[in-house]
Amino acid sequence: MSNPLDRILNPRRLAVIGASNDPEKRGYRAIRTLLADGYRGEVLPINPKATEILGLPCFASIDAVPGEVDLVLVCTPARTAPEVIEACGRKGVKGALLLAGGFSEASEAGRVLEEQTVAIARRYGLRLIGPNTNGIFTAREACNAIAWFDIPRGPAAMLANSANVMLSVLAEAQQHQYFGFNTLLSVGNQSDIQFHEYLTAMGDDSDIGAVISYIEGFKDGRAFIDAARAVTPKKPIVMFKAGRTAEGVRAARSHSGSLAGDYAVATGVLKQAGITLLERSDCLYPVAEALHLLPPLRSRRVAVLSEGGGVITVAAEALSERGLIIAPLSEATQQRIHEIVPNASAISNPVDAGGGTDPRAEYYGLCGAAILEDPNVDALMLTGFFGGYARRYGEGVAEMEFKVARDLAELMRKHGKPVVVQSHYAQFRTPALDVLRKAGVPFYRHIEIAAQCLASAADYSEAKRRIAASHPVAEAAAALPPAAVSLITAARSAGRNALLETEARAVLAACGANVAPIHLLRSSDDAVAAIATLGDQPLALKVVSQDVLHKSDSGGVRLAVRGEAGVRAAVVDILASVEQHVPGARIDGVLAAPMAARGVELIIGVSRDPQFGPVLMFGLGGIFVEAIEDVVFRALPITRADALEMIGEIRAQKMLDGVRGLPRVDREALVELLMHVSTIACAGDDIAEIDLNPVIATADGLVIADARMILT
Amino acid sequence: MSNPLDRILNPRRLAVIGASNDPEKRGYRAIRTLLADGYRGEVLPINPKATEILGLPCFASIDAVPGEVDLVLVCTPARTAPEVIEACGRKGVKGALLLAGGFSEASEAGRVLEEQTVAIARRYGLRLIGPNTNGIFTAREACNAIAWFDIPRGPAAMLANSANVMLSVLAEAQQHQYFGFNTLLSVGNQSDIQFHEYLTAMGDDSDIGAVISYIEGFKDGRAFIDAARAVTPKKPIVMFKAGRTAEGVRAARSHSGSLAGDYAVATGVLKQAGITLLERSDCLYPVAEALHLLPPLRSRRVAVLSEGGGVITVAAEALSERGLIIAPLSEATQQRIHEIVPNASAISNPVDAGGGTDPRAEYYGLCGAAILEDPNVDALMLTGFFGGYARRYGEGVAEMEFKVARDLAELMRKHGKPVVVQSHYAQFRTPALDVLRKAGVPFYRHIEIAAQCLASAADYSEAKRRIAASHPVAEAAAALPPAAVSLITAARSAGRNALLETEARAVLAACGANVAPIHLLRSSDDAVAAIATLGDQPLALKVVSQDVLHKSDSGGVRLAVRGEAGVRAAVVDILASVEQHVPGARIDGVLAAPMAARGVELIIGVSRDPQFGPVLMFGLGGIFVEAIEDVVFRALPITRADALEMIGEIRAQKMLDGVRGLPRVDREALVELLMHVSTIACAGDDIAEIDLNPVIATADGLVIADARMILT
Repeated sequence: MSNPLDRILNPRRLAVIGASNDPEKRGYRAIRTLLADGYRGEVLPINPKATEILGLPCFASIDAVPGEVDLVLVCTPARTAPEVIEACGRKGVKGALLLAGGFSEASEAGRVLEEQTVAIARRYGLRLIGPNTNGIFTAREACNAIAWFDIPRGPAAMLANSANVMLSVLAEAQQHQYFGFNTLLSVGNQSDIQFHEYLTAMGDDSDIGAVISYIEGFKDGRAFIDAARAVTPKKPIVMFKAGRTAEGVRAARSHSGSLAGDYAVATGVLKQAGITLLERSDCLYPVAEALHLLPPLRSRRVAVLSEGGGVITVAAEALSERGLIIAPLSEATQQRIHEIVPNASAISNPVDAGGGTDPRAEYYGLCGAAILEDPNVDALMLTGFFGGYARRYGEGVAEMEFKVARDLAELMRKHGKPVVVQSHYAQFRTPALDVLRKAGVPFYRHIEIAAQCLASAADYSEAKRRIAASHPVAEAAAALPPAAVSLITAARSAGRNALLETEARAVLAACGANVAPIHLLRSSDDAVAAIATLGDQPLALKVVSQDVLHKSDSGGVRLAVRGEAGVRAAVVDILASVEQHVPGARIDGVLAAPMAARGVELIIGVSRDPQFGPVLMFGLGGIFVEAIEDVVFRALPITRADALEMIGEIRAQKMLDGVRGLPRVDREALVELLMHVSTIACAGDDIAEIDLNPVIATADGLVIADARMILT
Repeated sequence: MSNPLDRILNPRRLAVIGASNDPEKRGYRAIRTLLADGYRGEVLPINPKATEILGLPCFASIDAVPGEVDLVLVCTPARTAPEVIEACGRKGVKGALLLAGGFSEASEAGRVLEEQTVAIARRYGLRLIGPNTNGIFTAREACNAIAWFDIPRGPAAMLANSANVMLSVLAEAQQHQYFGFNTLLSVGNQSDIQFHEYLTAMGDDSDIGAVISYIEGFKDGRAFIDAARAVTPKKPIVMFKAGRTAEGVRAARSHSGSLAGDYAVATGVLKQAGITLLERSDCLYPVAEALHLLPPLRSRRVAVLSEGGGVITVAAEALSERGLIIAPLSEATQQRIHEIVPNASAISNPVDAGGGTDPRAEYYGLCGAAILEDPNVDALMLTGFFGGYARRYGEGVAEMEFKVARDLAELMRKHGKPVVVQSHYAQFRTPALDVLRKAGVPFYRHIEIAAQCLASAADYSEAKRRIAASHPVAEAAAALPPAAVSLITAARSAGRNALLETEARAVLAACGANVAPIHLLRSSDDAVAAIATLGDQPLALKVVSQDVLHKSDSGGVRLAVRGEAGVRAAVVDILASVEQHVPGARIDGVLAAPMAARGVELIIGVSRDPQFGPVLMFGLGGIFVEAIEDVVFRALPITRADALEMIGEIRAQKMLDGVRGLPRVDREALVELLMHVSTIACAGDDIAEIDLNPVIATADGLVIADARMILT
């Protein structure tokens, strides 16, 4: 509980600036809500014109309050903020929550006012929540400073750019009842305290079991993922992030002024930090609950159990589409199921324990036990009537249904394998489902939501294992080798911000990357030497010049050139053509390289994302880059596990596995190259961008066919 | 009401074979349910050992029943079926519903029993429902022959391979209350009456407003889509079809013995027939309700209205991801919204009418009216607090909320533009939401479901327009032109089942397709003639031989050959190489064609789908076919509108729009070619398969670079 924000978020003494006796005013409603919700701390109304508000003695000013104040709730208009914060700072108040809008989200004048207010706060070491927020609710001291009612208590925390989205999730909790809130936090403009600081505080609070977040854009995305990486090993972070579409980006900008950024980048780096990113807002709450309740999955192999067909088909599709594996049960388990329900329609997985007879709750319990003991599967999804047996077949079967509910939870704990239940009767909130949920097994109305919960639990389990296994990354990465440094120094001395291709290749080589041989021809007379170096094989020739951006368009490229005469002629051609297109271009020579064999064109790049800083891109290169945009991202530096995941996330996996006579891509070599690029990009502060496109995966290995590097 | 199945599905006289006084028996429960649910017809129990069952006089046999019988409900075991159906046939009964399992779904003996039973029924013109079904419920005569209780009545019909999936949807209706059922029909083994016949009956029944279907596989998919095409102009068909994944295909086979077939084919042909195919089972019920309630959308341009940010971002993303357009509102509308809510945070679309003040229900009504009058948008989605104002702000605002609910429905009708409401308070079923729904506006708990409903409504509106506009397709298509017929006849006479490439090209040309010039060289001496025909340009040379399947692998292809000497040498090479690889191959010559310019490789194919018959495939060709599987299907024949839709459904649209210097594909020319292929495939019964791959879209037009045709 040593988080610096802890006392601000869970204040024991809370002053209300702008406290009021007018029931229409927020300064009245705020106090009423605090009292009504049983705030365990002390409320200190501040109003120079009142002596008592809602039965509490009122102070004329913050200075007049005796003793320490943890948090002030500022209900006065935006323009009063500098003066109020100045007074609070003098008093030594720890934090202030600015409710008012009219700051940077509204106008340029508001932006100035916000900056001014923040500057004052910083002078005093006072931390600001908001402005432009609906406030916060925290359960420890029952501090309801958000003025919403009926907040079910529980282990969830929510952190949001939007109070309305938070209210929507809250409404879900009010219906569900089981998975309530410890914290609700509407961040507002994040003028001072930002997402990542709140997140770290939530990570440090052992009362919080799961974090739900709705985020339109980060001010400091790098700090957020660093914070998240420390939180996700302890508790899940489930996120919905705006910006998948141009329309979403536009709406986010108009709503919170957020720059949603590149969603593909966010997808990669948030996953890397162990965050569960969801693309449906209706999954936020159930997935957070599931990740909080369920034990980790040891693998992605799951079983489906029902008492009828149809639903097993729907479930099998929903699970496998989300990357789970419907693994066959062992012969022994199948035999056990057959003995329990001799008429069972399917016993191998999915299991349809329905048959000639009416379904009975005990089948679920007995078959569930058999399945959970099977080493072939690591989780179980039940789908169908469970929770509705008593309703459907009469109270006579209620006791059995309760017993099975308790048994399922006990089996989950005993085997350490998640169990989730989809019940057609979920919305009727039957007593059996109540028993089930109280024993720790979540239930859902629909198969797709249940499947998403199980899939997200599998993803989260893998992410936790990956993060736990990753060697501590040396943030102060190794310096570049001297050879690379001299190349960079030379380029800078020559006033160049971009390395020549020959230099970029040399840097890669100096750092240990496997770069194909090249030869730089200064003139056509070097043809013999080039052939001597590279062998008498078809060559690709490219002009090397800091002044030629588009080599092909300037006639600076010739392919499949062969023999001394051919090379000579091509070099003469290239130099003439470039001179014609870019008169006076400074030309360092013509680079010759063997023509790459037929292979798979890949792209590897490094760039600086405005939100997340340096990121690595990997994907299909060449024409695929623009045509199908099959690329993935990670924040730098990466681990080997990150590299492997990146390769596995390419949608067109078939392109990597050898299709239509293309070679199978050597994933291990690719991991090596990605690690080299990561190391180079993180060594020192010299390299801003790297673009290797295409890297051709041939039968003989990876060939870097083009390399660009931009310096910082 | 002239559908031949109408009396069977809505029987007025219903006999129960195997009627029983034992409350455990289906023959007792069936009668009890019929009576309890107020069956308006006459129940006729049949049991030789009883005189009265549940107060009804019992008959010893079906022959003993006086007068006509519409339907018999057969509750006796499978083995009795032939005898029972024989007796019913003799009696002149119209239809029989066989409840028992143990037929073709269970064993080979069961399959024989089923065939035997069907043969008897056919002899008497008696139609069979099932066997292996839970039965049917139809509302007109209150005929509950499915033995489920609490069935809310309404305009929906459900047709399913799985009673359990149907029960799950029924449970949703029981909670929702507003959109109940006219018909519930579990088809069982479809031994006689099949999906398409039920569907046609549902189309003919004016009490039915929407059809929900869960289908694992078709026995006669072509008949189904033909039936569907006649139904969808009258009422929506919403479908969930198994088979998206290998796991789903496997589960469907184990459950209903269905062959789920190629899902990509099903997606295309079901859409073509105007069916709304959904990929989440939790969307079936809400989308069916929406398509039933909402007026058609004139375009895909929709508006979003809320009183808070965040949710407008989520809504904008959800709608645009589903292909709807968040179109800017007119200046005049924006001005009106500004006047209604001067503090509104966003007025252009999405509209966030929240601002400095607390939200008020009347804003929804006034802003909604302004938006629906705007010609720039054709539908409105409200998202946020509506339905919860009274709950949130007190009963004082209830009347206004009711008024706005009525106003929104009135606006929807007046402008003929759909309105849907997402309410955070949906699950509380507030009085305001009740007023709203009763007035015809659907409401939803979650944004994604609301967005899916609006998107499906837009899709359905477009499909109805497309089907209405399509010229009646000449099913008995024009015969092939004589030139094509003689080519085919010649090939058949030569004992060949596949056309040579030259013949396939000639058939295409004879049918009016724009085929690039070729020249067939019989020997190397034809080089001069080939160059005279095709011009002195780089040529592609390919062997033409019925015995050479893999031309490249046999050395039968040479690319970029130029000049007389070059062509001569290449022909000699090819002939020698083929002879070496396929000794004795019958060689018709070497085909020369100009090398295609750089372009986009496409594929066009015709094949026979086991479920849907002849289908047309279009997509990205060459390496893309296997690497990214970006292809779409339609049943043959297609209309021009179908062809345009096919081209528009390719995921990598960028490949068609000119990327990385590739030419922009001429969609009009592509439509022409697809129509030609459709015509050729449908003319007569000669051609079983066509494979044009690649068709290269160059800057100068489409070049068919390879053509194969297989005869029937």
